[in-house]
Amino acid sequence: MKHNFGAGPCILPQEVFKEASQAVIDFNNSGLSILEISHRSKAFEAVIEEAESLVRDLLAVPNGYSILFLQGGASQQFAMVPMNLLPQTGKAAYLDSGTWASKALKEAQKFGTVQVVASSKEANYTYIPKEYDVPTDASYFHYTSNNTIYGTELFETPKSSIPLVCDMSSDILSRKINVADFGLIYAGAQKNMGPAGVTLVIVKDDLLGKTGRDIPAIFDYRKHIEAGSLYNTPAVFAIYVSLLNLRWLKAKGGIEEIERENIIKARTLYDEIDRNPLFKGAAQAEDRSRMNVTFVMNNPELEKTFLALTEERGMIGLKGHRSVGGFRASIYNALTITSINALVDLMQEFAEKNA
Amino acid sequence: MKHNFGAGPCILPQEVFKEASQAVIDFNNSGLSILEISHRSKAFEAVIEEAESLVRDLLAVPNGYSILFLQGGASQQFAMVPMNLLPQTGKAAYLDSGTWASKALKEAQKFGTVQVVASSKEANYTYIPKEYDVPTDASYFHYTSNNTIYGTELFETPKSSIPLVCDMSSDILSRKINVADFGLIYAGAQKNMGPAGVTLVIVKDDLLGKTGRDIPAIFDYRKHIEAGSLYNTPAVFAIYVSLLNLRWLKAKGGIEEIERENIIKARTLYDEIDRNPLFKGAAQAEDRSRMNVTFVMNNPELEKTFLALTEERGMIGLKGHRSVGGFRASIYNALTITSINALVDLMQEFAEKNA
Repeated sequence: MKHNFGAGPCILPQEVFKEASQAVIDFNNSGLSILEISHRSKAFEAVIEEAESLVRDLLAVPNGYSILFLQGGASQQFAMVPMNLLPQTGKAAYLDSGTWASKALKEAQKFGTVQVVASSKEANYTYIPKEYDVPTDASYFHYTSNNTIYGTELFETPKSSIPLVCDMSSDILSRKINVADFGLIYAGAQKNMGPAGVTLVIVKDDLLGKTGRDIPAIFDYRKHIEAGSLYNTPAVFAIYVSLLNLRWLKAKGGIEEIERENIIKARTLYDEIDRNPLFKGAAQAEDRSRMNVTFVMNNPELEKTFLALTEERGMIGLKGHRSVGGFRASIYNALTITSINALVDLMQEFAEKNA
Repeated sequence: MKHNFGAGPCILPQEVFKEASQAVIDFNNSGLSILEISHRSKAFEAVIEEAESLVRDLLAVPNGYSILFLQGGASQQFAMVPMNLLPQTGKAAYLDSGTWASKALKEAQKFGTVQVVASSKEANYTYIPKEYDVPTDASYFHYTSNNTIYGTELFETPKSSIPLVCDMSSDILSRKINVADFGLIYAGAQKNMGPAGVTLVIVKDDLLGKTGRDIPAIFDYRKHIEAGSLYNTPAVFAIYVSLLNLRWLKAKGGIEEIERENIIKARTLYDEIDRNPLFKGAAQAEDRSRMNVTFVMNNPELEKTFLALTEERGMIGLKGHRSVGGFRASIYNALTITSINALVDLMQEFAEKNA
């Protein structure tokens, strides 16, 4: 058995893989592969409508918000957000809490003035900045709710009188959020929603169409809203697998249940990191992510040996990002407590041997 | 048995569906699904490198050209092409030969001056305009090699002293082309290359970086070239299925063999359309597409009945686009002569009954 701790694309439920595999041969007993059906067919319209309605249901998305399944990942949203929300002579506020947050604000600078309200860069992003004021004269305030590389997460929605825009790529659908607090939420699917190739956008309709920009059609949220995510050929298979995954989440009890499990999984692993004399957490304890657990060894010389041991035990993707070093256990929705326990057991074994 | 005449996403070879289905459960005996592997893993690097090298081999792409696997489809290229090739005060030339060609030029107008060299719009795009001069003072000349909706195809590469940019979404890999004639070629995969969700771009490197524009990173071809199509998380599965399809094409004899088959398939169907007293071709004979065969009935009242009969026989996707009416048989690489014969047989049966 493999334990996939990869940071994304990442593990999805085994039953989702099975159903997806079947649909590649024969989708819904149609005699056709899901890969060869038209995106304009009734069968695919049903897929995208159910996916949208499950997102609306699971996240309790209020009226007045549209749900889109686009392409290009969060990196494309870094450009599409200012294109759609930032007037040519306008200003946007950004929180710099990690590599992706920093990339997002660099792209926004190509479209207008960017005010960085706070940054933890000087501390290698080991914490989430908290002491800052959100300007009232900016078009929106952008932040990243979970910093995949550094293993920090922002659980309390910042107070802001201007619309909040949030990159939730790595913690969407892992815990309760109040969508009404946000103007726009985006997330690359390849962590908790589905496979790589599709991007979720939830946007408050009345924020759009105010920049005065002549936006290329393909980057204009309004075009995608009018067309129900079928403005152009969408990523059919990635949306279908996302639907399977959303159904799985709904069937297991929705956000409430998955958040309960995610809390237990994260606590189990952080408790071991704190207890075990060989290991220590990389991020500040108060900002620890429930999705990406970053940790190092007190004696860095042992790290190579431990990593090799994890690989021997079928644990995948535990090497830390080069910006942090050590280890990163990505413990997204579909990763089970069995995999967490396997890692904790190995940490304990290793500590005994190296006592 | 189903005969999938859909215009795209469309039929791919049955063996590709089988291998893809297996990889969703267990990719290359890794114990992991292709949907959960990292795009930075050695296994996926091998996938994208082999896919690139097969495109280079099959299309004989010369040195000095880069091959990219991007997201967003041809519609996104409508904006990315002028972003990357058209200076702010520059001019681009476009041929208006159909709906998609017309959409492409409308997007380019957002980035500079567009000179439409010729249009067949007044004849509902039933032919490819031929009498025109390509300006020498434009940055590039854009055309669409196959007009999916109208069923016309441009086989002879236009003479041009400026770089040619071509949307080959629906005929790429279906016939021989001379890549050296082009500055940039793009194609949504979902016809002859793979499933929806990935876009092929072949670009001459020395054309890039000359516009003076501050291009968002995600839309800058140079960023994707530097990163070997891994600037951001790519559409892993769609690229993998494209690889399987490229391998299939190579194994069956490459472009030369598929072009030979495509000529026979198209001729078989057009011959019946011309011979059968009930049917007539929609496009001008000299510009008939080998990929999308559009035809109508001399008595339009019979069309509904004939369409219902095709559906009874397991033929999918034959209803013509609303802009043309009648029928459209999309006969891409993976559609076999068996399906063509089934359609021809039905046309003959129907003619006998309605003689």
